[in-house]
Amino acid sequence: VLDVGTLPIRIEGKEVWFLDQRALPARVEYFKANDLESTCFAIKEMVIRGAPSIGVAAAFALAKDAINHADKVASIYALLDRLKFSRQQLEKTRPTAVNLFWATSAIFALAERDVAEIPGLSPTQLSRILWQRAEALLEEHIEHNRVLSEYGAKLVSENAAILTHCNAGSLAACGWGTALGVIRSAHFAGLKPQVYVDETRPRNQGGKITVWELERDGIPVTLICDSVAPYLMSQKKIDLIIVGADRIALNGDTANKVGTYMLALSAFHHQIPFYVAAPSSTIDRSIAGGAEIAIEERNQKELTHCGDVLLTTPAAQALNLAFDVTPAAFISAIITEQGVLAPPFEKTIAKLSQSALNGNNLRTAGV
Amino acid sequence: VLDVGTLPIRIEGKEVWFLDQRALPARVEYFKANDLESTCFAIKEMVIRGAPSIGVAAAFALAKDAINHADKVASIYALLDRLKFSRQQLEKTRPTAVNLFWATSAIFALAERDVAEIPGLSPTQLSRILWQRAEALLEEHIEHNRVLSEYGAKLVSENAAILTHCNAGSLAACGWGTALGVIRSAHFAGLKPQVYVDETRPRNQGGKITVWELERDGIPVTLICDSVAPYLMSQKKIDLIIVGADRIALNGDTANKVGTYMLALSAFHHQIPFYVAAPSSTIDRSIAGGAEIAIEERNQKELTHCGDVLLTTPAAQALNLAFDVTPAAFISAIITEQGVLAPPFEKTIAKLSQSALNGNNLRTAGV
Repeated sequence: VLDVGTLPIRIEGKEVWFLDQRALPARVEYFKANDLESTCFAIKEMVIRGAPSIGVAAAFALAKDAINHADKVASIYALLDRLKFSRQQLEKTRPTAVNLFWATSAIFALAERDVAEIPGLSPTQLSRILWQRAEALLEEHIEHNRVLSEYGAKLVSENAAILTHCNAGSLAACGWGTALGVIRSAHFAGLKPQVYVDETRPRNQGGKITVWELERDGIPVTLICDSVAPYLMSQKKIDLIIVGADRIALNGDTANKVGTYMLALSAFHHQIPFYVAAPSSTIDRSIAGGAEIAIEERNQKELTHCGDVLLTTPAAQALNLAFDVTPAAFISAIITEQGVLAPPFEKTIAKLSQSALNGNNLRTAGV
Repeated sequence: VLDVGTLPIRIEGKEVWFLDQRALPARVEYFKANDLESTCFAIKEMVIRGAPSIGVAAAFALAKDAINHADKVASIYALLDRLKFSRQQLEKTRPTAVNLFWATSAIFALAERDVAEIPGLSPTQLSRILWQRAEALLEEHIEHNRVLSEYGAKLVSENAAILTHCNAGSLAACGWGTALGVIRSAHFAGLKPQVYVDETRPRNQGGKITVWELERDGIPVTLICDSVAPYLMSQKKIDLIIVGADRIALNGDTANKVGTYMLALSAFHHQIPFYVAAPSSTIDRSIAGGAEIAIEERNQKELTHCGDVLLTTPAAQALNLAFDVTPAAFISAIITEQGVLAPPFEKTIAKLSQSALNGNNLRTAGV
């Protein structure tokens, strides 16, 4: 029996705990996220990170916020007003991953619908529905990861040397993982993948989190510098590349951790398969192409310091882009829970089931 | 009057001091390199680094070693034997930069010739000749850097956004610099270049040394992650790229700090000029192509640790290649003290003056 990896979100009763990803791999610590403020902090400071994980974290934040306010509001409409405010606060935390916006808008839209359609719905009843939906969303993500990983594993040949970037593992994706999920499924299917992980500057999620996850599963892993990966491709050391995604446009352009563009360009040049693994909720139906994706610029200190140690001059100015956009032309396929999408992505994305994109799945858990 | 930048090798009387590049930019410290062992240590541990600087450091090490042994040897032949041993020790320190081998072989060959041609040459006399040659070599490198930088500056347009990698500055190249020399010459010619420097993992020479050198000259500089440079190229933020070189094959293939391949490939794809700046002594006439260049693999700890802080799991295995090889096809031009070489490099390199490649220049300072 396989577990689903290390869970980034742990629910105990009605308490929400995040595995503090800032402390890994040195320490396994949990962060209590029982209100709006603590969840906003946790997303902003990357206590919890990874597009699917922050989406579900936001869903729990809204549910928990409703529970926290159900006794205090004068009416169901006042609770909706509060949730509108809370949603805005959550959406201010990080701009690039679409899953956050997808989750908050879906949760909020369903709450509005419930208020309109269910006569006499009380604030407490609504808060319970929201909580059930957040739980269902969490479970659904893990299930989707398992399904997409099975699809993805079929693309992996035996003894493949796989490069991955940043962390698209269990921790990033609620459980099991997306890109790492594919690798895990290939591993547990006996395909003996070996993995190159780049450190993923400036926050080193590759070296800190992905190496840790792979070691826990007994998958052979070699840590490399970000900049050496294209050279290793030229030396035929890498058979395929799998990464996650933070937002996918309708044409397949994909925003992901900075450095993804470099890997995809190099894979394209060396004719090495480059796969994006992501649940279909990562597709942003509102944008035609990657140029419309906002790229988060984070604190320079992530680049200029290692802990308290200065890595450059005191006066140095740094540009710290957290993401980049990879054009669809560099992507061999997008692995989703609805199947493996081949180019041209305009067409294959358009054929995806709308329900998974519209939050209809959330209704299953509702009233 | 312009100075030549911060000198990596300082000579006081017959004492050799290296500016300790491991301590920069936090502290300006000097390291006494007055015998073979200390110089070998300094090269291996990167107290002194950069292909031209370690070549000249090795020349001083041989000269100083001759001085240290002149009184102790029974004959001039015994001194030659000692120098042969010392040369071998120096050549074991680092495998990739050709300048080290070029300097040690040239210095040793001239010493052998002197012993054969000058009747009654004493060990002390030979040691003095070696010292003069090391001093001449140091001065010549700085002069060559100035000349190649003037050639290179003609390739730089006004207000150009220039990307450079690692450190090919004054510190790497005895004084003034090669890639940074071109940028400095463009700056002092009033062309107002602005520079993107990538941090250059795992030792961060870009963030630590290049930012420091550029700030000292008042040249605007922005520090970035290694992996973001190709994306910035796609966003048309970079007008040209200049890097140094550790070894250039006869066909123009160039070994340089790991990450160079990635930048060159991306520049090629985006049709951005990619220049290599190096003295012609960096050309290795003994190899036809880059596949013959040995790539140094350094201690994993450079990648897994930041000082004493572990950046990954305790068990993590890392591959730490210090260099990569960029194929000539990705290089727009090679800027040398003999002029700017255009492709096809087989032809333009073959036309270079042999004297500069054969160490004949060292004779000017001799007997």
